[in-house]
Amino acid sequence: MALLPPQIQKLIEEFSKLPGIGPKSAERLTFHLLRSSKASPEKLGEALIQLKREIRYCTVCQMVTTDETCVLCQDSSRDRATVLVVEDPLEVVAFEKTSFKGLYHVLHGVLSPIDGMGPEQLKMRELLDRVRAGGINEVIIATNPDIEGEATANYLRIQLKDHVGTITRLAHGLPMGADIEFADQITLREALAGRRSL
Amino acid sequence: MALLPPQIQKLIEEFSKLPGIGPKSAERLTFHLLRSSKASPEKLGEALIQLKREIRYCTVCQMVTTDETCVLCQDSSRDRATVLVVEDPLEVVAFEKTSFKGLYHVLHGVLSPIDGMGPEQLKMRELLDRVRAGGINEVIIATNPDIEGEATANYLRIQLKDHVGTITRLAHGLPMGADIEFADQITLREALAGRRSL
Repeated sequence: MALLPPQIQKLIEEFSKLPGIGPKSAERLTFHLLRSSKASPEKLGEALIQLKREIRYCTVCQMVTTDETCVLCQDSSRDRATVLVVEDPLEVVAFEKTSFKGLYHVLHGVLSPIDGMGPEQLKMRELLDRVRAGGINEVIIATNPDIEGEATANYLRIQLKDHVGTITRLAHGLPMGADIEFADQITLREALAGRRSL
Repeated sequence: MALLPPQIQKLIEEFSKLPGIGPKSAERLTFHLLRSSKASPEKLGEALIQLKREIRYCTVCQMVTTDETCVLCQDSSRDRATVLVVEDPLEVVAFEKTSFKGLYHVLHGVLSPIDGMGPEQLKMRELLDRVRAGGINEVIIATNPDIEGEATANYLRIQLKDHVGTITRLAHGLPMGADIEFADQITLREALAGRRSL
């Protein structure tokens, strides 16, 4: 005999599938939504259904957009010869807070065989096609400085090296505000290797 | 210039409203769903929209159900003279794993003025009406042993005391597997006060 109606069990199950949400959190979220004002779960539900229906990837840089191309690729003032390759759309948002004025390419993930992410699952072919089409002088690879990010950067370098003049990687070193005493040895080694004259 | 489409910003905003989910988690959930297989966000979305549309409260005990009354209130083998009062539907599920064979009453919350939860926001009137209608010998108050739970239990005792023969509260004391060394003083005091002969 099921005490909880199937609608509630289904919602708990769907919430449990999300990263970082276990069965107990899923139950808490479900009953929170049940008790909250009428509009709340329906608004979240509609936002979820709209997500895949209305969001597409920019045909040039693969950034999330509602049009054929994204606002950045449509902007004629950007430097089209420089392409910064990132893992996720949120990283585009982060770089837009810097003075970077080139274009982007969003991979939508990194190489991670354990999670079933190979080159075909990422937007790598689109990057290669874009570089082969010409007009790009520099590709800056800005994957995260972790194992998967480094492997992805290396794979991209091999794929791209015959098609583009300059391939660069973000500098590694001490972040601003860091405490050298607590920095890990790899970061310190990179900071030493990349030292610059004052 | 908004870099992220409004559909994505709306979903991040709706996720952020949930308890225990901050803006960073909301972003992570949104992009996880965007990247996952087509069905997943829509299934979650539909489950959310169905929630309030199809779930109602049992007219007797206020348990979640899809019918007029819940499966427990429909079950003629239950002891109708004993009513166990709980805060949430999940606590009914927990007590159903014990040998309790009475009926329940779900308050859907506890008194908590700081959260705007007064007696009117809870299913207290329904409990009072139920007790006044007669046939109930014992009301067991099983709110949580915290400040709000104790206040709610006390309020209920005052409201119910002229209408029902026996009002009880769950025993307080050491939980199974506890370590006395690490037990708090209130629990130890309650465990001493409620000691039973071996």
